[in-house]
Amino acid sequence: MSKMSFKQRIKSIVEYNDNTLSHYFAYFIQFLIIVSVITFSFETLPNISESTKFLLHIIEVVCVIVFTIEYLARIYVADHKLKFVFSFFGIIDLLAILPFYLSFGVDLRSLRLMRLFRLFRLLKLVRYNKAMRHFTEAMLLAKEQIILFMGVTLILIYFSAVGIYYFENEAQPDHFSSVFDSLWWSIVTLTTVGYGDVYPITVGGKVFTFFILLIGLGIVAIPTGIISSSLTKTIEDKSHEKR
Amino acid sequence: MSKMSFKQRIKSIVEYNDNTLSHYFAYFIQFLIIVSVITFSFETLPNISESTKFLLHIIEVVCVIVFTIEYLARIYVADHKLKFVFSFFGIIDLLAILPFYLSFGVDLRSLRLMRLFRLFRLLKLVRYNKAMRHFTEAMLLAKEQIILFMGVTLILIYFSAVGIYYFENEAQPDHFSSVFDSLWWSIVTLTTVGYGDVYPITVGGKVFTFFILLIGLGIVAIPTGIISSSLTKTIEDKSHEKR
Amino acid sequence: MSKMSFKQRIKSIVEYNDNTLSHYFAYFIQFLIIVSVITFSFETLPNISESTKFLLHIIEVVCVIVFTIEYLARIYVADHKLKFVFSFFGIIDLLAILPFYLSFGVDLRSLRLMRLFRLFRLLKLVRYNKAMRHFTEAMLLAKEQIILFMGVTLILIYFSAVGIYYFENEAQPDHFSSVFDSLWWSIVTLTTVGYGDVYPITVGGKVFTFFILLIGLGIVAIPTGIISSSLTKTIEDKSHEKR
Amino acid sequence: MSKMSFKQRIKSIVEYNDNTLSHYFAYFIQFLIIVSVITFSFETLPNISESTKFLLHIIEVVCVIVFTIEYLARIYVADHKLKFVFSFFGIIDLLAILPFYLSFGVDLRSLRLMRLFRLFRLLKLVRYNKAMRHFTEAMLLAKEQIILFMGVTLILIYFSAVGIYYFENEAQPDHFSSVFDSLWWSIVTLTTVGYGDVYPITVGGKVFTFFILLIGLGIVAIPTGIISSSLTKTIEDKSHEKR
Repeated sequence: MSKMSFKQRIKSIVEYNDNTLSHYFAYFIQFLIIVSVITFSFETLPNISESTKFLLHIIEVVCVIVFTIEYLARIYVADHKLKFVFSFFGIIDLLAILPFYLSFGVDLRSLRLMRLFRLFRLLKLVRYNKAMRHFTEAMLLAKEQIILFMGVTLILIYFSAVGIYYFENEAQPDHFSSVFDSLWWSIVTLTTVGYGDVYPITVGGKVFTFFILLIGLGIVAIPTGIISSSLTKTIEDKSHEKR
Repeated sequence: MSKMSFKQRIKSIVEYNDNTLSHYFAYFIQFLIIVSVITFSFETLPNISESTKFLLHIIEVVCVIVFTIEYLARIYVADHKLKFVFSFFGIIDLLAILPFYLSFGVDLRSLRLMRLFRLFRLLKLVRYNKAMRHFTEAMLLAKEQIILFMGVTLILIYFSAVGIYYFENEAQPDHFSSVFDSLWWSIVTLTTVGYGDVYPITVGGKVFTFFILLIGLGIVAIPTGIISSSLTKTIEDKSHEKR
Repeated sequence: MSKMSFKQRIKSIVEYNDNTLSHYFAYFIQFLIIVSVITFSFETLPNISESTKFLLHIIEVVCVIVFTIEYLARIYVADHKLKFVFSFFGIIDLLAILPFYLSFGVDLRSLRLMRLFRLFRLLKLVRYNKAMRHFTEAMLLAKEQIILFMGVTLILIYFSAVGIYYFENEAQPDHFSSVFDSLWWSIVTLTTVGYGDVYPITVGGKVFTFFILLIGLGIVAIPTGIISSSLTKTIEDKSHEKR
Repeated sequence: MSKMSFKQRIKSIVEYNDNTLSHYFAYFIQFLIIVSVITFSFETLPNISESTKFLLHIIEVVCVIVFTIEYLARIYVADHKLKFVFSFFGIIDLLAILPFYLSFGVDLRSLRLMRLFRLFRLLKLVRYNKAMRHFTEAMLLAKEQIILFMGVTLILIYFSAVGIYYFENEAQPDHFSSVFDSLWWSIVTLTTVGYGDVYPITVGGKVFTFFILLIGLGIVAIPTGIISSSLTKTIEDKSHEKR
């Protein structure tokens, strides 16, 4: 162990291995990601005192410093530095700290949107969390089918929107002023959310909704079914391999 | 290649084959279908300027011309011309262009409904899109079962409507004025959309809804489950054959 | 065929066999059931003219006469007459005609509820419809499991109701006046209907709803999942046997 | 049988065995649990007379006495008394009676919350009910996967909340005042409950909701799918073992 070069030792900590130190490092980074996200939430509270604001800013600065050190260490230990910088996790790591440094050079208005980018830190969890990796894998596996039925779903949503537009446009010109407005009704209805801000009031519109719901729900639920079954299968295959 | 007759060359382009030209042709037609549908949506916007209206009309005319040429070419290359004209895709192709030509001879009122028929163009996608064909196949396969449980679902919806009518009719004569009005409540509740425009207010009606929801949701969700599992199976079978 | 006794010929028609006449008879009865149910729906319309009322009454009388003849014929051809009368279908057949005859002896108020019993005719469809019989079989097969998880669901609904009662009772004494009122919120929320007539407004109530929805939805959906999978299996087994 | 010691006889009754007496005892305790829970519900009714209150109190006292005797008997017959006291069911049994005895020493305000603990009695049903044990087993089996996708779901809910906060905060500062308020919208929307108390009104917010619903519903439904399939599997395995 003592014979390891400095670079090798850093590498054994930063990259996810089976030694204790790298485990602690991983947990520490995950903890900071959660802290950073919670801090972000508290900053949006409308009535926070100046002292709380200051405290939240301190936590944020600490997080960014640690994430920056982590990012630089990862570049340092990478065999192909450029390859890492432009890899998925390399970009995520950069996006997690960039908003903070950019905020010095810009005015207050766009700063607000900048902070939103800090949410990319949540994606950093994917690297450490084995569960997340499972999920990402399963999604990539069933990608083709999901896109396929997403297409069918989108056509159905569009078709419903046009239908309801023709039935309700005259009776409710405010809520169904164009096909684009009707699309809002379509998605809220076919996902069965049903806020109740827009709904058909004409007999024709109600009958149309009746049939769209009867036929449509089955189709909209298909991508969900595919993801579920693909995931269950992936996990089953994994548990079989272990035996 | 040069020895091919003009008819054969047209046929190799128009009909979906493995050569590059037919691929480009298919993508071009699909692109025009999407453009045509988007144009249709923009036309429904309430406040569009005259110049935009003119532009949308130009796009529409171009689309119709291309679709007409495509339709005529398909008839030209078909071995059995009449068979093609009365086939599923033959009728769809005609319906996609017919509204435009008919709109010259009719007054403005019915023209509005005419435009709705332009949506049939979306069905033209079925021919080119492999994904769509998969879906259509799976639906035809499970057709019998779906109709079966659609029947059960319809009876349940009707039964719920009659029940709630008896409980709520006196308390809310406006919302539950007849069994037909109650059917609207039935479909909105059993699909769990729940807009909130109609809901029971009497104790009897609420207790009835309680039991209907407990029993009914399982039954309404069955067709969805059947479609999902039938689709997953179809795709699995296909991927096994490929191996 | 001509050697058959009168009773045997009636039996071959009334009971569901493979000969043409019994098929026609079955379709005719099913048609009358649908007609009778539609008539029933129209009678509930608030503004129907006297002539329409008279017409609907005539249709109703014709239906009842046919159903009565059918009922008597079934008793006549049954080997064990008493056994038929007290069988499931015997009782359904009686309930389908009884309300009509009882309506002569009673006052107008209870007559309204009487008419509701006419809906039992829908259950008569179960005999003729093969699809329905499939469904009934599958339900009986998974009966034990469904009851099991219905129990879990009921406990969860009750638990949610008590929880929300404690959080919201003070803030909204009208909507959450007792655990019984809260049960209405429970069922509407956990089935994801969400009418919007009652919802938590306190922070505690919202946080409680957050966790109940996260945990609860999975549990409420289980009976649905069981029915779906049991049905898919039943149908699969049947199609395997046919091969 | 007569040679059994007093302790052995008590043990054969209290612990769930195959003899008739222990069956009756189990049914009696289950009946009392249900009675106790129903009593609890009636106590929350706002307008109950003094005599009813007194009756409900008597029932409650009787239940507590029986549950106390049962608890003491279980300690008496246990081989390792301390192990039982600190076991899952030992703690549940204590929690079921503790609120009653503690209510003598405390003021009226906290007494209200005390009563809530009486609901723990529902958990006592788990011991007697075979169905419940099945469910608990299946949940423990799929525990790992459920926690995994609960995590994904939580991240998605959080992400949606932050997104909608940025789109709607300016337009609806009352409903989307902070990320915490937006979380309420997130859970209500992604579980498709959709009360209709909060919903996006800006174009940006509606488009964001459109995509979140399209992508999100599939992910939120996964834990449900996993529980369902794991349960179906558990029950299938059990029925195979029996054969």
